[in-house]
Amino acid sequence: MSSRSSNHRIRLEDELLRETVDGTFSIPWTHRLRFTRNAFADDNQVLESILPEQQEEIRLCTVIDAGLLEARPDLVDSIDRWQERLSGRVRPTGPPVVIPGGESTKTGWSSFETVAGAINDQHVCRRSIALIIGGGAVLDTAGFAAATSHRGIGVIRMPSTTLAQGDAGIGVKNGINAFGVKNFLGSFSPPLAVVNDLSLLESLDDAHWRGGLSEAVKVALLKHPALLDYIEQSSTLLHARDPQTMETVMLASARLHMDHIVHGGDPFENQHARPLDLGHWAAHRIEAVSQWRMPHGDAVAIGLAIDLDYTVRIGQLDMEVSKRVLRCLRSLGFLAGSDVLKDGSIILKGIEEFREHLGGRLTIPTITTPGKLMELHEIDSSIMMDAIASINEILCVDS
Amino acid sequence: MSSRSSNHRIRLEDELLRETVDGTFSIPWTHRLRFTRNAFADDNQVLESILPEQQEEIRLCTVIDAGLLEARPDLVDSIDRWQERLSGRVRPTGPPVVIPGGESTKTGWSSFETVAGAINDQHVCRRSIALIIGGGAVLDTAGFAAATSHRGIGVIRMPSTTLAQGDAGIGVKNGINAFGVKNFLGSFSPPLAVVNDLSLLESLDDAHWRGGLSEAVKVALLKHPALLDYIEQSSTLLHARDPQTMETVMLASARLHMDHIVHGGDPFENQHARPLDLGHWAAHRIEAVSQWRMPHGDAVAIGLAIDLDYTVRIGQLDMEVSKRVLRCLRSLGFLAGSDVLKDGSIILKGIEEFREHLGGRLTIPTITTPGKLMELHEIDSSIMMDAIASINEILCVDS
Repeated sequence: MSSRSSNHRIRLEDELLRETVDGTFSIPWTHRLRFTRNAFADDNQVLESILPEQQEEIRLCTVIDAGLLEARPDLVDSIDRWQERLSGRVRPTGPPVVIPGGESTKTGWSSFETVAGAINDQHVCRRSIALIIGGGAVLDTAGFAAATSHRGIGVIRMPSTTLAQGDAGIGVKNGINAFGVKNFLGSFSPPLAVVNDLSLLESLDDAHWRGGLSEAVKVALLKHPALLDYIEQSSTLLHARDPQTMETVMLASARLHMDHIVHGGDPFENQHARPLDLGHWAAHRIEAVSQWRMPHGDAVAIGLAIDLDYTVRIGQLDMEVSKRVLRCLRSLGFLAGSDVLKDGSIILKGIEEFREHLGGRLTIPTITTPGKLMELHEIDSSIMMDAIASINEILCVDS
Repeated sequence: MSSRSSNHRIRLEDELLRETVDGTFSIPWTHRLRFTRNAFADDNQVLESILPEQQEEIRLCTVIDAGLLEARPDLVDSIDRWQERLSGRVRPTGPPVVIPGGESTKTGWSSFETVAGAINDQHVCRRSIALIIGGGAVLDTAGFAAATSHRGIGVIRMPSTTLAQGDAGIGVKNGINAFGVKNFLGSFSPPLAVVNDLSLLESLDDAHWRGGLSEAVKVALLKHPALLDYIEQSSTLLHARDPQTMETVMLASARLHMDHIVHGGDPFENQHARPLDLGHWAAHRIEAVSQWRMPHGDAVAIGLAIDLDYTVRIGQLDMEVSKRVLRCLRSLGFLAGSDVLKDGSIILKGIEEFREHLGGRLTIPTITTPGKLMELHEIDSSIMMDAIASINEILCVDS
C-alpha cells in the first residue's frame, strides 16, 4: 500500500502475466449401490446409512413417480414415518413432488419444471438431497432437474422397476428428450447413492416386471455368460414372477452395469464407443418409431435380436447363440406381436442417429460369442435390412 | 452353454450378488487459458494449437453474441477465412448461431433453445466442438446448452468483454436464470479451452470496458495486493481506455481466477464457502432488484463497497482500506448515480438467497486486510443496513 504515493510505475511479476496457462484438476466420485427390501420400514437402516455425515439436519426433497404411487399409495405414509423416525437428522423440505412416469414425462419441459420449480419453492439448497423414487423416466427427468438446479444438488436414486434397478438407475446419466431425439438433453451426474428396494418390484405390471430382463440378457451376453445360463434356466420362474429369482437377476445385472461404470475407464463416455449399448441403436429408434408406446425393455429385446441376427449373417457369430437368445427372450415374454419393424428403412436411420449422439466414428457393439465383445465400424445396409426383416417375421407371428 | 441341458440349478458366485457395493472413480480435467490478439488472423496459430489432436475433421459450431457482431460485423468473414485456412482439420457445421447478449439472454429458454436447436439441426455430435464468442451471458447460456446437448459437447470459450475475459469466462460454470433466480439452472462443465482475444475489447462501450475491473479489484483484494496497487495507480489510464494497461489487468485477473479453480481444491464448489464471492451476495441481489438493467460489473463494485464498509463497522478492517477501494472504484467509473440501494431491506434479502444457493451454513467472504480472507457466518442486519445506507449516499451524489 506504500506504493500509492511513489512515482515509479508498479510492475507485476511476469509469472502472473503469462499468456499461456495450463492447469489440471481431478474430481473424485464415489458410487454406492445398496439392495434392500422395504427401505422405509422401522427396522431398516439402509437409507440412513448412506446419508452424508454432517452436523446440520439434512433437508430432503422427495420426488415420486405417479405410476408407482398409484400402485403403492401407502408409500407416502411410509416415507413420512421414516422421516419422523430420523427427525433431527433429516427434515422434509415439503410434500413429495409427484410427476408422471413413462417416456412422456421426458418429453418437453413440463415434468422437469415441476421438479426444478419445487426445488426452488421448497428452498432446496446445494446441501439438501433429492430422494427420487420411480422408474427410469422419472429418475432421468427428476435427476436432470436436480443435477442442474443450483448447478447440482445431491441425489439418492431409488429405482422402482426392474429396468431401473438392473440398468438405467445404476448409471451416472440423466436426461430428457428434445427435438424428437431421445435423451438429447442431459448430464453425467453420479448420484450420492442408488438404493434398490426389491419390494417395490412386486406391484409392477407384467411389461415392467420383464422390462429389465432384456438389459440383463444384454449385459450377460457382453460380460458374464454364466448369468445368461442362469436367466435361460430360470426363464419360466421369471415369467411366473418368482421374486427370489428376479432378485438374483437384479443383483447380478446391477452389479455388472456398475462395474462397467466404475472400472470401465470411461464413466462420462468421452470415447467413441459405448460397449454396453448392444442392441441399442435399434432400440432407441424403435421407441421413437412407436412414439414411445413400446417400453424400453421390449425395444431392447428386439434390438438384441436384430444385432445378433446381423452378426450371424456377417459370419461372426454362431447361429445357435442367436437362436438360443431368441428362445430365451421369447420365454421371458419379449418379442411378442408388434408391427414396429414393418418398414426396415425407417429403423435403419437409427444407425446414423446413434453415431451422431456419440460422435465421431460409428461404433456398434456386438459379440462373437457370449462374453466376447466385437465393435463394428461399418454396417452393410442390405444385410441389416435382411436381419430386420427376419426379426419382423418373428414379431408378426403373434400379431 | 452346456448347463442348459443339465438338471442342477446354476448358482452365480456370491461376489456378483453382493447387496452393498461401493466404487470410486475420478474424472481428470485440463483447463487451458490462452491470451492473444486477432485470433482469426492469418498469422495467428493460437486457436489451431488448442484443437484436439484427432484423425477425423473437427466439426465446429460457432455461436456469436449479437451485440459483439453489431460492433464487429467483420467477425463472420474472419471466422470463415480462418476455417478455410484450416480446411481439412476443421469444418463448420453450419452458419454461426447468433443469440442476444446481456442478462436477458439468460432468462427463459429462448436463447438456450436457439443454441440447443442449432446443435441438433447442424448435427453437432459429441466429437464436435462449440466455439462460443461473446460476453458472459452468452458464454453462460450457450455454454449450458452445449454442456447438456448430447450430455455435453466440447466447448471453446472466447470471451469478448473485460468481465468475461478476466473472470466469468475463466470459470467452469455456466447457467441461465429461472424462477426469478440468477443462475438457478446450470452446470459445472470445464471448457476445452478459454481463448481471450484482447482485440475484441476495443469495440466495447464504456460500461463493458470497465465491467471486468470491479472483479479485478475483488480478486486483487482477496489474493494479490500488488494487483490492487497496480489498478489503483493505473486507474486514470484504465478509465481513459489504455489498451496495454487493460491487457495487464486482464492477464492478472484471469490468472488469479484460474489458479483459484485449478489449485483452490474445490472447482465444483462442493464446500459451503465460495471464497471468490466477495461482494457478490449484494451484487446478485442488486442485479435482480434493477431487473438486470444494472451490469454485473457495476453491481459488483457496489457489493464490494457494501461488504468492506460492513467489515469496517464490525471492527475487522481498517477504514483507510475501505476508503481507498471506494476511491479506486470511483476513479474507474464505478459507484456513479443509482437509486438501486434506496430500500436497504430489499437488498438484505440477498443474504438468505446467497446462503440457499450454496446451501448449509451462511458463509460471506470478506477481508481483514488486502490478501487476507475472513469468512463471516453471521451478519448483523442492522449494521448491514447502515452499511447499505452509507453506500447509497455515495451512489446518490451523482444521481
